[in-house]
Amino acid sequence: MKAEIIAIGTELLLGQIVNTNAQYISQKLAQYGVDVYFQTVVGDNASRLRQAIEVGRSRADLLLFTGGLGPTQDDLTKDVLADYLGRKLILHGPSMAKIEELFSSRGVHMVESNRRQANMIEGSTAIINEAGLAVGNGLTVDGTHYLLLPGPPKEMKPMMEGSAAEWLQQVLGNMKPLYSRLLKFAGIGESNLEAQLISLIDGQSDPTIAPYASEGEVTIRVSTKAETSIEAESRIDATVERIKVLVGDYLYAQEDITLEEQVIRLLRTSRRTLASAESCSGGLLAELITSIPGSSGEYKGGVVTYTNEMKHALLGIPISQLEGAGAPGAVSESTAALMAERVMDLSGADFGVSLTGVAGPAESEGKPVGLVYAALAQRGKATEVYCLNLRGSREIIRLRAVKAILYRLWLALR
Amino acid sequence: MKAEIIAIGTELLLGQIVNTNAQYISQKLAQYGVDVYFQTVVGDNASRLRQAIEVGRSRADLLLFTGGLGPTQDDLTKDVLADYLGRKLILHGPSMAKIEELFSSRGVHMVESNRRQANMIEGSTAIINEAGLAVGNGLTVDGTHYLLLPGPPKEMKPMMEGSAAEWLQQVLGNMKPLYSRLLKFAGIGESNLEAQLISLIDGQSDPTIAPYASEGEVTIRVSTKAETSIEAESRIDATVERIKVLVGDYLYAQEDITLEEQVIRLLRTSRRTLASAESCSGGLLAELITSIPGSSGEYKGGVVTYTNEMKHALLGIPISQLEGAGAPGAVSESTAALMAERVMDLSGADFGVSLTGVAGPAESEGKPVGLVYAALAQRGKATEVYCLNLRGSREIIRLRAVKAILYRLWLALR
Repeated sequence: MKAEIIAIGTELLLGQIVNTNAQYISQKLAQYGVDVYFQTVVGDNASRLRQAIEVGRSRADLLLFTGGLGPTQDDLTKDVLADYLGRKLILHGPSMAKIEELFSSRGVHMVESNRRQANMIEGSTAIINEAGLAVGNGLTVDGTHYLLLPGPPKEMKPMMEGSAAEWLQQVLGNMKPLYSRLLKFAGIGESNLEAQLISLIDGQSDPTIAPYASEGEVTIRVSTKAETSIEAESRIDATVERIKVLVGDYLYAQEDITLEEQVIRLLRTSRRTLASAESCSGGLLAELITSIPGSSGEYKGGVVTYTNEMKHALLGIPISQLEGAGAPGAVSESTAALMAERVMDLSGADFGVSLTGVAGPAESEGKPVGLVYAALAQRGKATEVYCLNLRGSREIIRLRAVKAILYRLWLALR
Repeated sequence: MKAEIIAIGTELLLGQIVNTNAQYISQKLAQYGVDVYFQTVVGDNASRLRQAIEVGRSRADLLLFTGGLGPTQDDLTKDVLADYLGRKLILHGPSMAKIEELFSSRGVHMVESNRRQANMIEGSTAIINEAGLAVGNGLTVDGTHYLLLPGPPKEMKPMMEGSAAEWLQQVLGNMKPLYSRLLKFAGIGESNLEAQLISLIDGQSDPTIAPYASEGEVTIRVSTKAETSIEAESRIDATVERIKVLVGDYLYAQEDITLEEQVIRLLRTSRRTLASAESCSGGLLAELITSIPGSSGEYKGGVVTYTNEMKHALLGIPISQLEGAGAPGAVSESTAALMAERVMDLSGADFGVSLTGVAGPAESEGKPVGLVYAALAQRGKATEVYCLNLRGSREIIRLRAVKAILYRLWLALR
């Protein structure tokens, strides 16, 4: 079954709010095995809403509306759809009783427009709204299914889980749900990963393998439709095994977690701790790690030594290492190693990581933008230093540098 | 002019990501005086993308695409639109040179598909992408304008502010332009600010005064349509003066800069420097400040003392201050003051700021989530400590704490 989600609200078109409803409903429909082919947003305008209904009907079997069921003159969804279908609006008795009861219990005069929330398109099923006053509608006309839900997420979501799900179940009959697994990769770019997997991606249609990138990490989605989750999982497992043979060294998780979350988990299970010394990344590594609740058990803290004097004052790195003729300088392999080792020793952590480089936009010490030294120190082992040549804006260079050293830490921990 | 935003990406239809691009682009187009009538999301599928183009063309003058410009086989936007318009794809020389240079500088073999990112629809204007490899396209065919931008927000947003804005300006031509000034506030919440300005907001229709919130800061846009910028500026100036009378103590800038950017500017002009000691905010303050290019002149660095041992090891705060019966504890007024003073002294900076508190989700030292002590130390003056009771998620509490101490620093500097 092909579905289109139509969100109604001028505030969406003005960018005042983001369309999280479309995301939520898309996720739910995917779980129910319905393919969402389009999402549309239209304002509180009758003729344009009618246009959206016409377009939707021409390309989908299920139109799921969210928004425009409230009491105001702007709330037009039921009126426009009823008119489009040539049907009348009738009052839903139980919903009207609920509205009247609410107002009388509050001792407030009911503005007449509130009745609109109890409207039903003739011939539709009432989709009960436990969390609000606007009743939902579900109906099928000429083979097209229409499901009307309110816009406020706190009303719409319980309906998608309950009353609307029941109606959908009847309409969908015996459809197979879609099962997906996310694979998360680091240490490899999207196009390189795809090139290594191209034979798999092109060669098999079930499960499907679809890559997409977020900065510093790459995600692949493996999906299949199946009768049961056991059947789906076994098919997905087989595909993941084939992927692992090709690019297993970059696969850090089989669920939607960040690289830093995975690193914190591995530190936790191995009862080890981390400290950081950052220069060019300016605290970004610390910030990403400490954004994970409970990371204080594994992350002891760190320093942001943005100037040479701070590298000396906080980490005890000799000024002669950093400045003067013949000195390696702040952006150097040996300074990176010293930073990682000193912060490890100062903090008593098991691992020390460091980043020192040129995030740009201007070069520094005569060294080019994007040159970053990343070091990983660990107790009882030689310190490893990586020389990175990164591209992109200042922000992207900083993020890629952080992900690069986290990837090395993941390799050491896995 | 009527616009439709078409976002391309199967991950949107599966609900894996939320369509924040549509929100951002809608806001921008509203500023440029363009009415967005529809937003559409379509998957990485040639025939359905073609359908979306056909529908969009029938109901809008400007189709703004985001997504599908990358290197993979899933990235179809240019191919499908070129085919729809009966035009060829040609390579954009400078973009191709940039791609080749990137790969050769990294010493990495370039996968052939990367060339796709330099594609242009014949007859289109190149919309330069400073933050990524995929070049944008702008073209007008039979009275319909097509603007193609990449999907990653880090690439798309700078283009909407820069190269794409220039192209739009030409296309929009003789519209009476909308002039806007952004007023940025800190230290006050959106609803409180709006309440204090309600007489102005409701009482005048030109210039319009529109508040909108971003976390930790509040922005007000003052807008008017005018023939000339001089005419617009003088009208906006008069409105700003009326706003200043009511809420001038919170107005930190009359342009779209962050609070941390304004603080760095004021440090620069007064030739003073800053260092930071963070606990609950985990490096977020350092990260925000160092994300500003050139901030190393004013920001010396800082520490992220996420554990008591780090507060002792790096800042020399006595363990007896932090732990044991009767000790003030890590989350206390006196610890906040010590952190700010010690980091100021260690670094030789003119100001030291600190944050120590409970970001959640669990309480700490028996102290509630949201309790944060923020301290501001400055040479020759008494250290000020602020007790904050913040609400929201862990992430929001951290951000609000950082903005709160930056606001106090701004007050000290202005």
